[in-house]
Amino acid sequence: MIDLREILLPNIPDDNEKREISDIAESLISGIIQILDRDGINATPVLVGSTAKHTNLKNADIDIFIVFDRKFSERQMESIGLRVGHEVLPDGIERYAEHPYVSGHIRGRKIDIVPCFRIESNTRIISSVDRTPLHTEYVLSHLDEKRRNDVLALKLFMKSIGVYGSEIRVQGFSGYVCELLVINLGSFQKVLERFASQKGRLVIPDATPLAAKYRSPVVIEDPTDSSRNAAAAISLENLSIMKIESRLYLHSPSPSFFTKPQQDKPLPYMDRGTCIRIVTLPKPDLVDDVIYSQAQRARKILVEHIVDMGFHYMDSELYVGNTIEIMIETETAVLPAVTRHVGPPVDTPNSMAFIMKWKDGKSVRGPYVSDDRICVDALSGVRDIETAISSAFSGANIGKNLDPVKGEARIIDPAVSDAAYMVLGKFYSRKIRL
Amino acid sequence: MIDLREILLPNIPDDNEKREISDIAESLISGIIQILDRDGINATPVLVGSTAKHTNLKNADIDIFIVFDRKFSERQMESIGLRVGHEVLPDGIERYAEHPYVSGHIRGRKIDIVPCFRIESNTRIISSVDRTPLHTEYVLSHLDEKRRNDVLALKLFMKSIGVYGSEIRVQGFSGYVCELLVINLGSFQKVLERFASQKGRLVIPDATPLAAKYRSPVVIEDPTDSSRNAAAAISLENLSIMKIESRLYLHSPSPSFFTKPQQDKPLPYMDRGTCIRIVTLPKPDLVDDVIYSQAQRARKILVEHIVDMGFHYMDSELYVGNTIEIMIETETAVLPAVTRHVGPPVDTPNSMAFIMKWKDGKSVRGPYVSDDRICVDALSGVRDIETAISSAFSGANIGKNLDPVKGEARIIDPAVSDAAYMVLGKFYSRKIRL
Repeated sequence: MIDLREILLPNIPDDNEKREISDIAESLISGIIQILDRDGINATPVLVGSTAKHTNLKNADIDIFIVFDRKFSERQMESIGLRVGHEVLPDGIERYAEHPYVSGHIRGRKIDIVPCFRIESNTRIISSVDRTPLHTEYVLSHLDEKRRNDVLALKLFMKSIGVYGSEIRVQGFSGYVCELLVINLGSFQKVLERFASQKGRLVIPDATPLAAKYRSPVVIEDPTDSSRNAAAAISLENLSIMKIESRLYLHSPSPSFFTKPQQDKPLPYMDRGTCIRIVTLPKPDLVDDVIYSQAQRARKILVEHIVDMGFHYMDSELYVGNTIEIMIETETAVLPAVTRHVGPPVDTPNSMAFIMKWKDGKSVRGPYVSDDRICVDALSGVRDIETAISSAFSGANIGKNLDPVKGEARIIDPAVSDAAYMVLGKFYSRKIRL
Repeated sequence: MIDLREILLPNIPDDNEKREISDIAESLISGIIQILDRDGINATPVLVGSTAKHTNLKNADIDIFIVFDRKFSERQMESIGLRVGHEVLPDGIERYAEHPYVSGHIRGRKIDIVPCFRIESNTRIISSVDRTPLHTEYVLSHLDEKRRNDVLALKLFMKSIGVYGSEIRVQGFSGYVCELLVINLGSFQKVLERFASQKGRLVIPDATPLAAKYRSPVVIEDPTDSSRNAAAAISLENLSIMKIESRLYLHSPSPSFFTKPQQDKPLPYMDRGTCIRIVTLPKPDLVDDVIYSQAQRARKILVEHIVDMGFHYMDSELYVGNTIEIMIETETAVLPAVTRHVGPPVDTPNSMAFIMKWKDGKSVRGPYVSDDRICVDALSGVRDIETAISSAFSGANIGKNLDPVKGEARIIDPAVSDAAYMVLGKFYSRKIRL
């Protein structure tokens, strides 16, 4: 058996770090209270997130929410929140999630100051951020110190296999979901046993009406709002990875399941007897979730377009660094010179129009009948992958922020140079942790 | 409008030919009667087929059946039938359909002498050949002279568009089906109107229980045996061709719909930006139906094998001349160097075995998770079309008579020479009559 305490020790805050976190948090909270008092604003700063719940791994962010009374308008709440944030975080910059917030650093540690509205359990909310303080309360009152270590082990395991984080880049398990899993199932070991034996979707609790309401691969009822699936962000692939890695771990437990995941590194082209192209787009200066959701949309549109054109799609990959890199792999770079156009069934009136359209030598072959359809072979319009890719985005909307820069898309054939690309590194290295 | 009599005139027997046919038939029948009397055999020669029904086009065969009493054994019937056949047809050779028979020539006209058993309508038969004399009686008593011309026009039309003949090579409309269509629908024009407006299958009569019993594209109840579909041989493609050509003819009637179909002619390779290969097999000396059913089976096995190997199938063609030529067209001649092996779902016990099998560097990439499956990319076994084709027949049975010669199969790349092939001519020329 693995001694989880031993595994955890180097990965969780030592006494120094704990003291530092509580010092920073306390001084921020008292600073914010002073400002609110000074300005006569009815609002309360609350420490939330993993540091509040004592489920933080080493070097965690500190998240402080300023909880406003509902008598404030959304605009008031946001502008006051930003002003207070800047006052306590001199290096803070404004970011935008569901509300705008201020993000900065104190003693090298990342701090977020986020305004939100006060709500009670199971009441209507204005933004899902408003529910965060309730999550903190719930976890604090349902997780004792022993089980906090189970949460920490689970987070470490999930980080190691690459499924931790609910952001769109990852589409994995949030910290709150880890906490709910341990609260519901009892321990790190029991959580892994559940994933290892789970067939199909994971639904907690078994009887939740959310299972019928949502089609997500994982459904976990949020105890602070029974109408919300706390696990909605998790992709089928990440559920699958968690299942198989749980099996592998239970089959032969090893500390390697808790080590840092391999870092993505750039790789040059390697020949797979296929056609690989990379499409790059400039990366607008926006939060990751916005970039990733649009970049994933662009990747999906590209893949669908290439398939529509008749190319045989094999795989694709996405990497967002200084630029957005979308890789696509097809079986060949060139299509046949002829394409079969399958026309209408012979027993529909349209079949005559189809024949008239193609009859005077406009086809390479036909019209001819195949089964119950009238068909022709005609010259393929676009045959090469470059031309096909270059038209992928022209008729499509690839998202509010990427659409304006799609004219700057570049198509790279990585086979003609020795240059290394992050997206190729990610693609060639795809592998579960063994 | 088209004057059908004018169209028919050059295509049906003139008075000379009619006289010649009746002379030959009468002298054969009286010759056979003499032999049967001489040998004390209780059997009766009957003229059957189109010449008996007066629905014969120019240069039709003469078919005479010798109808035996059921007290004869099958073996007796067959041996006596062959002996009599040889006696009246000095140049006759033995052929084998459902019974063996003798085929020869008199004054350049093909003659078949076929033994069969006497049966009554709707009774059990030993072979479907035995029903032929009943068809002759039925048609003679249901088709007047005016409607015989409709049958002749229909046959001529179907020959012209390539759907006439129930042999396996054609899978089209038999003469008897043409007669039943005119008897049931009233005229050539009405038959074409029915095909032009028919949605889906053609079923005659509407209420026949055979429609539920058989899945054939055309179901026509045989009036001499209500349990038999007289149109079972007709393929979906030939029904479709008949539908669309009927539409085209009714849209603009023209004598061209009654002219001889274009003859197949050999053509050399023409580049379609695809991969074309021809597989040749020696042709055993057997009747067409036997050769074609096995050659079509070989073609089907080849196509399925090539698809299984991962090639992208486009089309195929079959020609049987001095040799059997099977052509296959795929998008490329070479597959990617890697193949994705999609393993079991992650939540089945097999997923662990799959991982163990592939984990130690045996894969090009992975194991990795895709959706809910565990996958690897591995080196493709066979990559080139020649190797793929050469293994197509090795594990398969391509028919009793072709299987022994499959070792003599040759694979030809027609692109490397100027040689012309009949199968290529048939392939490149595929087109409906316009």
